[in-house]
Amino acid sequence: MTTLAIDNIGLLVTNDEALGDVRDAAIVIEGERVVAVERAGAQADQRIDAGGRCVIPGFVDCHTHLVFAGDRADEFAARMAGRRYSAGGIRVTTDATRAASADELAALTEGRRREGLRAGITHVEIKSGYGLETGSETRSCEVASRFTDDVTFLGAHVVPAEYEGRADDYVELVCGEMLAACAPYSKWIDVFCEEGAFDAEQSRAVLEAGAAAGLGLRVHANQLGEGPGVQLAVEMGAASADHCTYLSDDDIEALAAGDTVATFLPATDFSTREQYPDARRAIDAGVSVALATNTNPGSSYTTSMSFCIALAVRDMRMTAEEALRAATLGGARALRRDDIGHLAPGARGDVAILDAPSYTHIVYRPGVPLIAATIAAGELVWADPDGLKSLRAPS
Amino acid sequence: MTTLAIDNIGLLVTNDEALGDVRDAAIVIEGERVVAVERAGAQADQRIDAGGRCVIPGFVDCHTHLVFAGDRADEFAARMAGRRYSAGGIRVTTDATRAASADELAALTEGRRREGLRAGITHVEIKSGYGLETGSETRSCEVASRFTDDVTFLGAHVVPAEYEGRADDYVELVCGEMLAACAPYSKWIDVFCEEGAFDAEQSRAVLEAGAAAGLGLRVHANQLGEGPGVQLAVEMGAASADHCTYLSDDDIEALAAGDTVATFLPATDFSTREQYPDARRAIDAGVSVALATNTNPGSSYTTSMSFCIALAVRDMRMTAEEALRAATLGGARALRRDDIGHLAPGARGDVAILDAPSYTHIVYRPGVPLIAATIAAGELVWADPDGLKSLRAPS
Repeated sequence: MTTLAIDNIGLLVTNDEALGDVRDAAIVIEGERVVAVERAGAQADQRIDAGGRCVIPGFVDCHTHLVFAGDRADEFAARMAGRRYSAGGIRVTTDATRAASADELAALTEGRRREGLRAGITHVEIKSGYGLETGSETRSCEVASRFTDDVTFLGAHVVPAEYEGRADDYVELVCGEMLAACAPYSKWIDVFCEEGAFDAEQSRAVLEAGAAAGLGLRVHANQLGEGPGVQLAVEMGAASADHCTYLSDDDIEALAAGDTVATFLPATDFSTREQYPDARRAIDAGVSVALATNTNPGSSYTTSMSFCIALAVRDMRMTAEEALRAATLGGARALRRDDIGHLAPGARGDVAILDAPSYTHIVYRPGVPLIAATIAAGELVWADPDGLKSLRAPS
Repeated sequence: MTTLAIDNIGLLVTNDEALGDVRDAAIVIEGERVVAVERAGAQADQRIDAGGRCVIPGFVDCHTHLVFAGDRADEFAARMAGRRYSAGGIRVTTDATRAASADELAALTEGRRREGLRAGITHVEIKSGYGLETGSETRSCEVASRFTDDVTFLGAHVVPAEYEGRADDYVELVCGEMLAACAPYSKWIDVFCEEGAFDAEQSRAVLEAGAAAGLGLRVHANQLGEGPGVQLAVEMGAASADHCTYLSDDDIEALAAGDTVATFLPATDFSTREQYPDARRAIDAGVSVALATNTNPGSSYTTSMSFCIALAVRDMRMTAEEALRAATLGGARALRRDDIGHLAPGARGDVAILDAPSYTHIVYRPGVPLIAATIAAGELVWADPDGLKSLRAPS
């Protein structure tokens, strides 16, 4: 296998306890894996000169809904203008997603992944949840499985219109036929445990059925208010409780004592004009945290992890270091993986080169696309046209 | 002269009362000027196919400090972490800027302009203000004049360390020798009228001296609290009062009755964790408003007008339409120009093509670089490598 050296790194973030932040470093990747982290001046078949820039592990985006058709810009504009929007909401997306073919959905997902790679996201979890019927959910999970091995079956996203007033019947469908059809493509099951979606009992049923089918557990919890979601997630050993915008003292205590990661999705709070989660309080209590984009057409149509990091620092009182870690190692933990989110020999060769001397610049330069290059599994998948000249050099 | 058609525009924002928003349109540019806005299917020597995308006037960034050396990422990180930062502040930038040659400053400014062009900014105002001595201020103004005809002399940015306790002496220098040296490169004079910078009397002296030298007036006003800046700006007929984060009822009344534009700089409020200005209140009272980036290394190191627009909508209660207008036509008005900020025959051919069907997406997709292409004075200066394939088509 050929080797690739990313050399002349001014500041390297490894997220590895033993290594930490390294100055004047190089990473050597063989095939898909990191084989060495060493001093600048590495030998390899190919070489990318980072030109003294900061290099970080690729972002791990542990919460996305990338498989959907249509957008909801009008609904968004109406919400921002303070107007009540009576039209469809999620139903608009469900109708468009049901109507789309697998190849159409794959092309749309491909475009969003391309955007994410340019934003430094080298690994994504992808949820279904806009089909809400067996055929369409299965199609979504299959399409998602073309892009990641972290597919999440989210049939229990909301109760679809045709089941209005019959939520329990819909839960039965989700736990039965729909789960059976989607499980072969999925690693995880997720449920939106919130007033207006599924209550604690229904959520528990969904999670138990998923666990029985061999899936790992995730929960949409406490987005719009305090509720049972977080504690249910911890009790059932879910890998992640996502949103966590409202956390009671008991929620914090449960998270700190359990194995469930609290995944914050601040771009959602931005786009819905919700309050931001109090990450500082959670971290200070010992809660393990992650940051993710929640890319979706209703409440967070961004693929910019940098934007999420900037919000986390400005509005959730995380330090830049904590936010970067949450967007890389934190995401990996929320997916219970140890092959990504850090850079040590053996890890996947997932790397982002920043067009900046430090990761503080992700927050210091908000809105500026700072990803000079992205390397995913050892392959250069994005190189900024302006940055490229100085990044590529003969070996 | 050759003609360029930007054709197949799904939604064209002209900012022109007569035209407004146009669907299925084309713009024809001859040399540097727009010569026609018409239905799709235009004839021209060259053609860019917008592929149904939304096209807007290039952003007019009426408040920047692009000429500086060094950065202050450590100070920023410390501020975000809630720590008091005792080191240099603006002095760090002043020292680095004084030490840099004109060509070094020009290269740094060039890089920032390149970033801005990629962000759709086709016109900038550039201030001096990090030299704070005659030679260095003159050098900054000269460098700025290589990039724009809207150069602003801001010798009265702060009182430099060597004049500590002798602010009046420094004002005398600014109004005398320094102004005389900088005026040939400048169109505008600006003063930071704020507690800790210059008081009303000193600010008035600076503005009067500038006016006597034939310069137009601008004022940094009401950034950190209410103060005399806004009303002084209106009274003296300044083109713009910038920041306006704190506005009293009297300030609003004065702005609404006068000819001074209120220029909001929300990325600054983001980066300093300040409150956001109440744009809604100002607009509803009839104040003419602009949005600008305030690109500078201390309080707003972004070149992303899209980020500013997103904040203006989310946190300042502007509609997406108002925010876009403020970032284009509003900026032009704050610079008292009628050749930019809109697209009608005779206007400069400054255009941004969004990788989106509507300008709402600038807010709906926060953090995502949505500028597919930028045309400045009729020249294609940026085309996104992924978008380019579908944008360029044979005529």
